[in-house]
Amino acid sequence: MKSFLTLKSVDEVLSLVRSFEPLEEEYIALDDCAGRYLAHDWAAPEDLPGFNRSTVDGYAVRARDVFGAQEGSPALLECVGDCPMGKAPDFSLAPGQTARILTGGMLPDGADCVVMVEYSRPAGENLVELVRTQAPGDHVLERDEDAALGKTLLTAGTRLRPQEIGLLAALGQAGVSVTRRPRVAILSTGDEVVPFDQKPLPGQVRDVNSHSVAALCRAEGAEVRFEGLVRDDVAKLEASVRNALDFADVVLLSGGSSAGMRDHTVDIFLSMPDSELLVHGAAISPGKPFILARSGKKCLMGLPGHVSSALVCARVFLAPLLRHLQGGEEPVAAGVQAVLSRSVASAQGRRDFIRVKLSRSEKGWSAEPVTSPSGLISGLVQADALVVCPENSEGLYAGQEVFAELLR
Amino acid sequence: MKSFLTLKSVDEVLSLVRSFEPLEEEYIALDDCAGRYLAHDWAAPEDLPGFNRSTVDGYAVRARDVFGAQEGSPALLECVGDCPMGKAPDFSLAPGQTARILTGGMLPDGADCVVMVEYSRPAGENLVELVRTQAPGDHVLERDEDAALGKTLLTAGTRLRPQEIGLLAALGQAGVSVTRRPRVAILSTGDEVVPFDQKPLPGQVRDVNSHSVAALCRAEGAEVRFEGLVRDDVAKLEASVRNALDFADVVLLSGGSSAGMRDHTVDIFLSMPDSELLVHGAAISPGKPFILARSGKKCLMGLPGHVSSALVCARVFLAPLLRHLQGGEEPVAAGVQAVLSRSVASAQGRRDFIRVKLSRSEKGWSAEPVTSPSGLISGLVQADALVVCPENSEGLYAGQEVFAELLR
Repeated sequence: MKSFLTLKSVDEVLSLVRSFEPLEEEYIALDDCAGRYLAHDWAAPEDLPGFNRSTVDGYAVRARDVFGAQEGSPALLECVGDCPMGKAPDFSLAPGQTARILTGGMLPDGADCVVMVEYSRPAGENLVELVRTQAPGDHVLERDEDAALGKTLLTAGTRLRPQEIGLLAALGQAGVSVTRRPRVAILSTGDEVVPFDQKPLPGQVRDVNSHSVAALCRAEGAEVRFEGLVRDDVAKLEASVRNALDFADVVLLSGGSSAGMRDHTVDIFLSMPDSELLVHGAAISPGKPFILARSGKKCLMGLPGHVSSALVCARVFLAPLLRHLQGGEEPVAAGVQAVLSRSVASAQGRRDFIRVKLSRSEKGWSAEPVTSPSGLISGLVQADALVVCPENSEGLYAGQEVFAELLR
Repeated sequence: MKSFLTLKSVDEVLSLVRSFEPLEEEYIALDDCAGRYLAHDWAAPEDLPGFNRSTVDGYAVRARDVFGAQEGSPALLECVGDCPMGKAPDFSLAPGQTARILTGGMLPDGADCVVMVEYSRPAGENLVELVRTQAPGDHVLERDEDAALGKTLLTAGTRLRPQEIGLLAALGQAGVSVTRRPRVAILSTGDEVVPFDQKPLPGQVRDVNSHSVAALCRAEGAEVRFEGLVRDDVAKLEASVRNALDFADVVLLSGGSSAGMRDHTVDIFLSMPDSELLVHGAAISPGKPFILARSGKKCLMGLPGHVSSALVCARVFLAPLLRHLQGGEEPVAAGVQAVLSRSVASAQGRRDFIRVKLSRSEKGWSAEPVTSPSGLISGLVQADALVVCPENSEGLYAGQEVFAELLR
């Protein structure tokens, strides 16, 4: 009655995920680019800041004119005026001369450093005493110190954080070429499933996976289209998948991926044009009945029907796919070091994702495993993080230090 | 010429940030709720799944009928039919009877557990041999196991992740009350600053902070309105701040927060209705010239002009403010444990946020401090994470283990 699955390891699945081709690029206004992935390497189109700029309020000088200056033996200089903000000074400094300057101001020709105002005192008329020795470049941003013309500042695939947006603004980029958002079509299957806004009859449950997985897709930058619920009817399901492929880069089927009657998912995926089955079952818990196939350049994915399995599989396989389709590198996993509060058993040859609840004491973080069947969503709701129990391990021990990757 | 600032500690500033009143709630469709913060505690409106549900494909039985069953001594039961998917079975099990059931199916009355199909074999006619003993509840989700009617499942202030969206869908919530998004108005000041899409003349630089800080605000769920660049002109700046207060919950001024001519920021903030100065200078590096004030319930914030200082201050003070205004708790800081590659000096009494670049070896993560003046944006672009050097420390040492909080 059941066909046996040939399970692929998590790393094998991830390497197949990376075999899909990243999407094409699009040009986007700078203020809409946050979180997107840069399509090309990007080099500075000019020097930044573009002129020698003071980082303090004080006196622009030539270093040699304040050489050795100190409290007891000040350097006496002639102040020739104020450096205007936002303009090039219309004077230059001759030896023995200085000019007042504010933070952000442009140094006049002849000046190579700035003495902070705290180290100055008026000395009558247009004279000023400076009591601090400086080296050339002190309190100055050089004209190409933030970026030098032609230097590659950002590489293709960089995820644009606030600081990258700032750098692009600093260099006058009104927009940027980024990889376009993946389009994801979500189909739910199962004769027992009803839409979430409908009252289930006895024996029915509401559709959970469409909504939880859609939220995850959007957080990874994808556009989502709900294709609705399809009954467990091969012809209807096949038509729905075919129809979804017109729109989508990724067609997600939730439910229908266990062995048994639900094996039809594989047949349906294989009936699509230019298709190939890549994964039928993954060595992961929760989430074993995971399916990955391609139709041309497009991705067909079958997520388990169990609600927690579906979401863990989506985090482990779908999120990296969506980042990869956008040309992005895998980010550093973000979490905390924690001590496991009790032992959990696992099976060798399988990667387990253990849901944990974190709590903090003076001794640091403690991770309490949440034991809840994968068919319940409440276990993931209680969980703050996932702890990996690797393939070569039979479990994790109480008191063991683990890395708990936060579930955001 | 310079007034001295009375610096507040980072923790003092954060506690003042939390003195603002969270915003009002709004009702939002479920699929738009991801990342938002729940306005009220929320209890299950019904039991979930609502019926006893099989978690496997197999045979629904009464545990006592398979008590002691094993390979050599099977239990022989009469199979009375199939449990339909998505419907209540129209039969109940008498002692000695069983029914076929699929994953997700509803158990018939009389059954209290399920034997997996792997442990069954046909025994002619409508008879079946089961070779596994089970306890009541085995392979069954009880009718209220995911959620019991009336139980508080989510508390006010919960940030809605994909799993919370899933739970809300499972219980039929078409929408939810969340705290509304904060509205942030961003003003940039400085006579040397020009809009980012304009070619700067010598002595001018493009506006960076509006764009980098806006990206950070949006990532924290805020709506942003650019109020444009205002010259260093007290009357104009005051009018702009007053105008921005009509729209905004938070008015951000970037630049204009150092001592000197730029002290006018404080005066302008204090000229707003029902205003109070909360912070004028914070014991933080980078970012010292930070200003926080209130006007009634609204927040006025002055960020440093230096581009990296502005963004670090925004991460440390503004992001928590935006979460607090949405009623959210501070999340667990996400990062990695790393070994510092070289020493960095700090000053006692100040919290330093050291920008680091991460690299991975077999020994784990290494954090290399990025030394770059705070007036440059490139230092933050190179950085993967921030490492805190606390107030009671004079620095961090090469080889020291540190927590590197990722810059997302």
